[in-house]
Amino acid sequence: MKRFIDLADLEPAAVRDLIALAQKLEREPEPEALAGKVLGLLFMNPSLRTLASFQAGMARLGGRSFVITPGQGTWQLETRLGAVMDGDRAEHIREGLPVLASYADAVGIRSFAEGKDLAADMAETGFKAMAELVDKPLVNMESAMNHPCQALADWKTMDELDVPAQGKFVLSWVNHPRALPLAVPAATLTMAAQRGMEVVVLRPEGYEIPQPLADKARRLAKASGGSFTETTDRTAALKGARVLYAKEWGSTRHYGDPSADAELRRQLAHWKVDEPWFAPADPACHFMHCLPVRRNVAVTDAVLDGPRSVVLREAYNRMPAQMAVLHRLLAR
Amino acid sequence: MKRFIDLADLEPAAVRDLIALAQKLEREPEPEALAGKVLGLLFMNPSLRTLASFQAGMARLGGRSFVITPGQGTWQLETRLGAVMDGDRAEHIREGLPVLASYADAVGIRSFAEGKDLAADMAETGFKAMAELVDKPLVNMESAMNHPCQALADWKTMDELDVPAQGKFVLSWVNHPRALPLAVPAATLTMAAQRGMEVVVLRPEGYEIPQPLADKARRLAKASGGSFTETTDRTAALKGARVLYAKEWGSTRHYGDPSADAELRRQLAHWKVDEPWFAPADPACHFMHCLPVRRNVAVTDAVLDGPRSVVLREAYNRMPAQMAVLHRLLAR
Amino acid sequence: MKRFIDLADLEPAAVRDLIALAQKLEREPEPEALAGKVLGLLFMNPSLRTLASFQAGMARLGGRSFVITPGQGTWQLETRLGAVMDGDRAEHIREGLPVLASYADAVGIRSFAEGKDLAADMAETGFKAMAELVDKPLVNMESAMNHPCQALADWKTMDELDVPAQGKFVLSWVNHPRALPLAVPAATLTMAAQRGMEVVVLRPEGYEIPQPLADKARRLAKASGGSFTETTDRTAALKGARVLYAKEWGSTRHYGDPSADAELRRQLAHWKVDEPWFAPADPACHFMHCLPVRRNVAVTDAVLDGPRSVVLREAYNRMPAQMAVLHRLLAR
Repeated sequence: MKRFIDLADLEPAAVRDLIALAQKLEREPEPEALAGKVLGLLFMNPSLRTLASFQAGMARLGGRSFVITPGQGTWQLETRLGAVMDGDRAEHIREGLPVLASYADAVGIRSFAEGKDLAADMAETGFKAMAELVDKPLVNMESAMNHPCQALADWKTMDELDVPAQGKFVLSWVNHPRALPLAVPAATLTMAAQRGMEVVVLRPEGYEIPQPLADKARRLAKASGGSFTETTDRTAALKGARVLYAKEWGSTRHYGDPSADAELRRQLAHWKVDEPWFAPADPACHFMHCLPVRRNVAVTDAVLDGPRSVVLREAYNRMPAQMAVLHRLLAR
Repeated sequence: MKRFIDLADLEPAAVRDLIALAQKLEREPEPEALAGKVLGLLFMNPSLRTLASFQAGMARLGGRSFVITPGQGTWQLETRLGAVMDGDRAEHIREGLPVLASYADAVGIRSFAEGKDLAADMAETGFKAMAELVDKPLVNMESAMNHPCQALADWKTMDELDVPAQGKFVLSWVNHPRALPLAVPAATLTMAAQRGMEVVVLRPEGYEIPQPLADKARRLAKASGGSFTETTDRTAALKGARVLYAKEWGSTRHYGDPSADAELRRQLAHWKVDEPWFAPADPACHFMHCLPVRRNVAVTDAVLDGPRSVVLREAYNRMPAQMAVLHRLLAR
Repeated sequence: MKRFIDLADLEPAAVRDLIALAQKLEREPEPEALAGKVLGLLFMNPSLRTLASFQAGMARLGGRSFVITPGQGTWQLETRLGAVMDGDRAEHIREGLPVLASYADAVGIRSFAEGKDLAADMAETGFKAMAELVDKPLVNMESAMNHPCQALADWKTMDELDVPAQGKFVLSWVNHPRALPLAVPAATLTMAAQRGMEVVVLRPEGYEIPQPLADKARRLAKASGGSFTETTDRTAALKGARVLYAKEWGSTRHYGDPSADAELRRQLAHWKVDEPWFAPADPACHFMHCLPVRRNVAVTDAVLDGPRSVVLREAYNRMPAQMAVLHRLLAR
């Protein structure tokens, strides 16, 4: 493996191998596996889990990391091709990124969606431009439309909780103070499709899954014996569900228009997961979320702190999942 | 030892054992003692000594650290229970902290006083709520009313300077542009009481030591053969003193009221340590301060740069003191 | 070697030895050479290459680093002697720096020019005051008038590109949105003089090289068989050049006067390196720059992305060059 950009680049069997490696590293630590290796981490956007778990995971394999955060000790980086750089961005990624890569044995990049043009974000134009500048093993630490480390951790979590491979997986839109990127919903629904699950996206009007993403989910589902549908009907969606995965995202109908999104959202405060949501679900239905989550906006304290919630396990699994990825990218 | 939260949780003999271990680690480094261990450091407030000395000390024992600083590369964390999180704080400590702890073998937390309600801060409601979320060995890197790492380093410093266990220890209020927390004064006076010293707090009217803290100091002093008194009389306080420990803190009479504090403080600019202060003291009297210190506001350049000043030694001692704590928490 | 402050402190033969060590460390890594050593890095100014390459280089030698960035997780540091510290700077470098040094085995400091008084900056009053406070091996990570790590990396780069020791080296002023410090031009032209090159500084009126710096360059050139001249004539300057090293700097005629500098600069937008600049040069002439660079302000995309450009190699060479320096400062 040279790059870990999109979980869908791997066959389901290869994903299962990665998870098996993650579990092996938990049972039998390899504290010298990446001795002498250096991981360069570029955060164009803020982070908590990713920032901590990559450093901790690399350390647990004997390697070391450095972190570059434009705007925090490092100047802002320009990304526009052909820019006349007479503003406040002191360096272009066309120099900055290859330079960082030249100091490292592998590179991780976090770069969120621009949030203006849905087609450009769907095409991952920003992340692809950055990835092209890196000639070392590369990890996507969250791009415009993907978050493969989260998806891998979530798959591992479901395996450990014995969520059936064919179980019903409901990805539900939930409320948030503002429009958020589609990275996690995209990564999550394709992961669940790839795992062979009955994937249902529950969301209000105006928050439809973009066509190319729905097509990708259907293709992956078909290959694995799963399915993909979308609905606004909460009771139907949750009937028999094994997982309710809550996630916030911006209106796809009004992509790049925060005021139209806010207008639409004004009627949607009831899209906050509460215990009654689970009435039609399988009694063992789990509550999942990638974190960070707005308590009492996206989900009630009662659900988040209750027995259905597996959010801390998902977050913990980021570390072993990423250790498996780094091991594959860097160990001899 | 599972947690290092308050020096007063330890018997004086256990404190002396920790200092002996710190001194042993200085003489006989153990560069592999914490190999493979990861320390997670959460800084809710800024830092220089603590930030550097924990990372350096962990490295000198063969371990590794990661640093999370909300507001600097990581979003702000919400701490209020039951909050409806529709503002700018993207994540609650109820998720953030257990997640960070799950990546680490031990956790350090710095979280200053809220500075609004004296009883709440005295009760350490904020730090206790955070500590409850961590199921790993935990170090208090400064809380509302405590700073045990500073206290341990100061005790070690006094031992090395042959300050007698029964010597007179004067904690003097000094001036500052604004109200500061009580963490260091509280940690310092209880440490000196626990060491068996004749503790005198010298301070202006309005800056009294809160009753529960005074009670704690008296209890500790009694057990160790020391004493605790408070005065506004500088000459009497410093008569025969072996240590003048200067520290800034906010008015306890006007706790949480910065303008009343500022009004009171307007008359107190002469509370700036200068050489004449030492006239009644023992000739060998040392000047101590935890740093950072406002030169020519809290203390003159002449005293701080003069032979009485042991502030750099105190600061250096943070590292070996904390190495002893980490060794106890993490070494097999 | 105890300190690496100015490349000109070393004889040319000693510089060549350092480069040879850098190249040896590239061929034969020494992943345990600095095991147990801790490097403390103080960044008074932002950074990308320096921040990443020192951490990565130290890691590749088995050592560890901590980073302190005033204003980013640490308060601002006061530098003025005798200051009455009643403003927003919470700590003086007179405490801060010795404390950081006491935790570390070696220290790196980045502290840019104040940009107000040319004589004071030329005298390195700021960096010298900081250096005096450090009793450990010390590396200049860029001061008011120097950047020896960049100079060493550039010398190594020219050696590897077979740029003749007596070749013509043109340091050309180029445009920038605002006045920048003289650190890199100073370090670069003295490095090239020390290497024995025919050094020509090409710059507009008002951007003259300060006399003490020109004298230093002439002295170094004389000792190595090189030369130093200054001109405003681009064609003459570039005739036969083997290197065009572009760099931005503030007007030395209007030092500390940004509006006069901006006024002068209004007519200088054509000082942007483009392919026609190279017409009089040696066909093998390289384009060099220390980065970060403003694309299409200081240099066109075509030149920067073209075959003449060796900026990424220069930046990469920061790491092995600094590894050699750290090895000399810290290895037994």
